[in-house]
Amino acid sequence: MERADLLVVHASELLALDHGRPGPAVGKALDDLRIIPDGAVAVTGDRIAAVGATAEINARYTASRVLDAAGRVVMPGFVDPHTHLVFPATREEEFEMRCLGKSYEEIAAAGGGIRNSARKMRGARREDLLARAKSLRRMTLLHGTTTIEAKSGYGLSTESEVLSLEIAREIDDRGDVVPTFLGAHEVPDEHRADRGEYIRIVTEEMIPRVAALGLARFCDVFCEKRVFSIEESRRILVAARTAGLGLKLHADELNPTGGAELAAELRAVSADHLIRVSDTGIRAMARAGVVAVLLPATSYFLGMKAFAPGRRMVSAGVPVALATDLNPGSSMTGNMQFVLTTACLGYGFTVAEAIVAATLNAAYAVGLGEEVGSLAPGKRADLLVLDVPRYRLLAYHHGVNHVATVVHHGEVVA
Amino acid sequence: MERADLLVVHASELLALDHGRPGPAVGKALDDLRIIPDGAVAVTGDRIAAVGATAEINARYTASRVLDAAGRVVMPGFVDPHTHLVFPATREEEFEMRCLGKSYEEIAAAGGGIRNSARKMRGARREDLLARAKSLRRMTLLHGTTTIEAKSGYGLSTESEVLSLEIAREIDDRGDVVPTFLGAHEVPDEHRADRGEYIRIVTEEMIPRVAALGLARFCDVFCEKRVFSIEESRRILVAARTAGLGLKLHADELNPTGGAELAAELRAVSADHLIRVSDTGIRAMARAGVVAVLLPATSYFLGMKAFAPGRRMVSAGVPVALATDLNPGSSMTGNMQFVLTTACLGYGFTVAEAIVAATLNAAYAVGLGEEVGSLAPGKRADLLVLDVPRYRLLAYHHGVNHVATVVHHGEVVA
Repeated sequence: MERADLLVVHASELLALDHGRPGPAVGKALDDLRIIPDGAVAVTGDRIAAVGATAEINARYTASRVLDAAGRVVMPGFVDPHTHLVFPATREEEFEMRCLGKSYEEIAAAGGGIRNSARKMRGARREDLLARAKSLRRMTLLHGTTTIEAKSGYGLSTESEVLSLEIAREIDDRGDVVPTFLGAHEVPDEHRADRGEYIRIVTEEMIPRVAALGLARFCDVFCEKRVFSIEESRRILVAARTAGLGLKLHADELNPTGGAELAAELRAVSADHLIRVSDTGIRAMARAGVVAVLLPATSYFLGMKAFAPGRRMVSAGVPVALATDLNPGSSMTGNMQFVLTTACLGYGFTVAEAIVAATLNAAYAVGLGEEVGSLAPGKRADLLVLDVPRYRLLAYHHGVNHVATVVHHGEVVA
Repeated sequence: MERADLLVVHASELLALDHGRPGPAVGKALDDLRIIPDGAVAVTGDRIAAVGATAEINARYTASRVLDAAGRVVMPGFVDPHTHLVFPATREEEFEMRCLGKSYEEIAAAGGGIRNSARKMRGARREDLLARAKSLRRMTLLHGTTTIEAKSGYGLSTESEVLSLEIAREIDDRGDVVPTFLGAHEVPDEHRADRGEYIRIVTEEMIPRVAALGLARFCDVFCEKRVFSIEESRRILVAARTAGLGLKLHADELNPTGGAELAAELRAVSADHLIRVSDTGIRAMARAGVVAVLLPATSYFLGMKAFAPGRRMVSAGVPVALATDLNPGSSMTGNMQFVLTTACLGYGFTVAEAIVAATLNAAYAVGLGEEVGSLAPGKRADLLVLDVPRYRLLAYHHGVNHVATVVHHGEVVA
């Protein structure tokens, strides 16, 4: 018998998601959870040692700690590959303005939105920012998110952007918070008259500084009408690539600007949002293997009308992932379970497709596809025990936190 | 000093909702929470003794138990005035069929939907039905629902409808579960060839039996194209009224059939759904004082396209309430907080309007407006302590259960 530190046994359905080859799930593979009935996982240290039927695992391993998951689903922890976790204040007054009829773009044009947060960021105290981000991170963990991307982008000055990324690092010492530099989230108030100067600061000051400090894994740009153009986005991303950062792009969210095509051209790891993506952009992403990070909770929170063409992207062979977009303006939720339900309804995904998109493919969207996102030997032991007997209930019965237990780095943390 | 059993003090915002006169909140009153900053509530037995500023309440009362709500919002418990709490099985396979493109009506026409539940109901064991309903009721309580309506309607036979209502009674011995008879939810398989015979059974057997046993406070009918016509609905409701039951109506949900007009004609307590309500229907409801029970979570769960004209109803002077519609087909959630967010987004309600609709007006929709729904002296001590400092966060920050403490009948229950 081999020794393990933890066994999780008798899962009614164990969603392994282990396709036995590297890379995200594309096409029909997206709908394949690799379910093991009466399944079990053996954990040694912070790693998955083995996955299989409970009878097999019990025959092979003993462990000091055993979790009985009878009647419950076990699955990999959620990976949330697109959040704006570090922000200075909530913006509930803008939410109400939107409900009463103002559009997100009107609010932004009037100095609200990201610039509103940026002004508050400048006056924020480090300890308050840290406390808020920690509290939100804890909340997402309790809802099953074991790995989370976190963008800067409310600082919009070198000092304040660096501070945001330092906070992302400070809430995490084990690589679960993937930091992305998003200095090009908006042009701040003081540079509205000379946007070229702000882009110069982003490319010549912020990016080199952030890269030198090792504060970010990715660089992202909000490529959008009235924010950063395709040409500006390209300049910024090329500078980031030169500095050694991976690339992401807010693409084609509110208007079709060719963001998906740009992401494909630059071999970005992901292009995100994509509500208005063109067919050309979809084909380009499929060819380049760019992960489409879809944000259905944002569609919901912006008024429930427009959804990205998720089904068309899956059919075209684009690897599709899901994220919350947690941020104080357009998606004030960190709950990936809500994202699953809304993805099924908004994109016509099966529950299985939504789950694979929110775990395995999401891991590839943050460059961690070989580390997390499925229950496979050697991967980090990040897994959830869900208080439902069949996996479809996770998306179908919504508005409830179904996560009964979170195992993170091999430890039961919630 | 007076003695109280419980004091809740130092609420950052105490939402009293006490308008000082009977009746639901209509028009501008819907947007008025009657907020008391640094507010407090004194509770004696199961009743609210006093509501006011903390300084006043502390000067007047002592109590053995004091809850400090500093930094937190205190509000009345939610009243959920439209649920189908007693059902035999979840229907997640139909959810997925809908996500993949089938409509709710197509699934129903093929024998799914309500008839699917009815078939399963006939084979269900009483203890399983009770356990499921109890578990769902507990879940709704933990999410802040202190009073909940519960309809029968998956039995569709006298015996099975009576069983459903007995279960609603069995999970509650204090009047928090308001039972509604909904035998006319669908025509069951065995009567599809002779619907007249089923209506005869509803009016001549079920209604008298349910009334004689005191099992229901209201009678409801699913008035809808291909379900029960206006004429059939009228017959059933008139029989119910004769038997002493209050009236409710599923009206104008998927097609405009004149349900709102019928509800007004019969002075129903509420008309529910109303996605396709006519302007004539709105005016008739306003004149008759029929509460419009709106179900935004159902719009979400049926694909996020069509919402009832909530704003138009408010402007027309209709008293508007909100409910989850918790049921296994078209709204698998019991979370009133999600309903608030979706109501703001779908109807253009302010957060305050949504809160008043989900408490005070919802109480009137189940005939309990003088008993629960606001924090007023003499009312039942049903209140929530929310883990947010400002009330707008309750709807804005969604996907999280903000209920920190539930006081129910004067007792801290969660």
